[in-house]
Amino acid sequence: MYPVSLSELIEEFNKLPGIGHKSAVRLAFHVMNMPNEKVEKFIGAINNAKTKVHLCKKCQNLTDKEECDICSSSKRDKSVICVMESPKDVTALEKTKEYNGLYHVLHGAISPMDGIGPDDIKIRELIARLTPEVTEIIMATNPTVEGEATAMYIARLLKPMGITVTRIAHGIPVGGDIEYADEVTLSRAIEGRREI
Amino acid sequence: MYPVSLSELIEEFNKLPGIGHKSAVRLAFHVMNMPNEKVEKFIGAINNAKTKVHLCKKCQNLTDKEECDICSSSKRDKSVICVMESPKDVTALEKTKEYNGLYHVLHGAISPMDGIGPDDIKIRELIARLTPEVTEIIMATNPTVEGEATAMYIARLLKPMGITVTRIAHGIPVGGDIEYADEVTLSRAIEGRREI
Repeated sequence: MYPVSLSELIEEFNKLPGIGHKSAVRLAFHVMNMPNEKVEKFIGAINNAKTKVHLCKKCQNLTDKEECDICSSSKRDKSVICVMESPKDVTALEKTKEYNGLYHVLHGAISPMDGIGPDDIKIRELIARLTPEVTEIIMATNPTVEGEATAMYIARLLKPMGITVTRIAHGIPVGGDIEYADEVTLSRAIEGRREI
Repeated sequence: MYPVSLSELIEEFNKLPGIGHKSAVRLAFHVMNMPNEKVEKFIGAINNAKTKVHLCKKCQNLTDKEECDICSSSKRDKSVICVMESPKDVTALEKTKEYNGLYHVLHGAISPMDGIGPDDIKIRELIARLTPEVTEIIMATNPTVEGEATAMYIARLLKPMGITVTRIAHGIPVGGDIEYADEVTLSRAIEGRREI
């Protein structure tokens, strides 16, 4: 019942993740009623993000510079690299302000089921940046089958090079309830116990 | 922690109605990872909707033609005009396939509290299209204070012109529960009772 151009815009919004038909209609009407300069700003932001953002040549995280702010910072400890699956993971860890080393973003995890092998994620780029300065690699991939397999694969690859490879701790989340923890998490929590 | 251009895109998505920060991040990443041609299609749809869609010169509904499909249809009953607040209302009534007359979209309702007077909505355009052919105006504005006031205002304006002005029925929604109906709806339902 809407004009073709409006229906097409609704359809485009509907294709975005998490946007159902009703939200798509609301968004399309909102954009239609936005002043032209705001729409241009919105479109400009999309174009900017698409053209300017690329992968940091060192850590493969997203950046709009040649080398990202973390890699080019003089304040970061360049002897530790934390390997993560996605840029969102890096942002999550940065928010804690607890980690001062470098990062490496794999952009995925090894998953033979989905046809993703070691060459399809940024493992080669990780190996390439391992100077003698680097003494520890923290494997912070997700605690999923794919994330574990990727951590194991990289650990086996790096061990012969004399680099310490560590894995982030798994266990009961802080504030979590032991009663409701799944068996795997619980057994990992027991395994990883420490003296207090 | 994201590159500036990506943060700006996240911020732009965050400004849209119903899009919180987490959704904005997901949408921005999705757009970043979309193939260029799909992004161009998305931007094209926005530009198209903004430039091609305007108000029908007769009913003021959205259209990408000079006159909308309903106004230019030979199958619609041109003696009845249903007056509604928004294009979305027209779509809702069209979906019922029960109404065969014309429409008039006011684009709002009289609301002195928000500084919206009779001249700020499309009442003048309604008066201008009242040919002798038109015998009934159905006021289908929302059952809110503003909608009622608008219906009353237009009714008073048109009565001297000898046009029948009707108001859509208010009452218990079909499938609704009388127990939970608000007092106003319930008293309207009693008032509007019909012999069965």
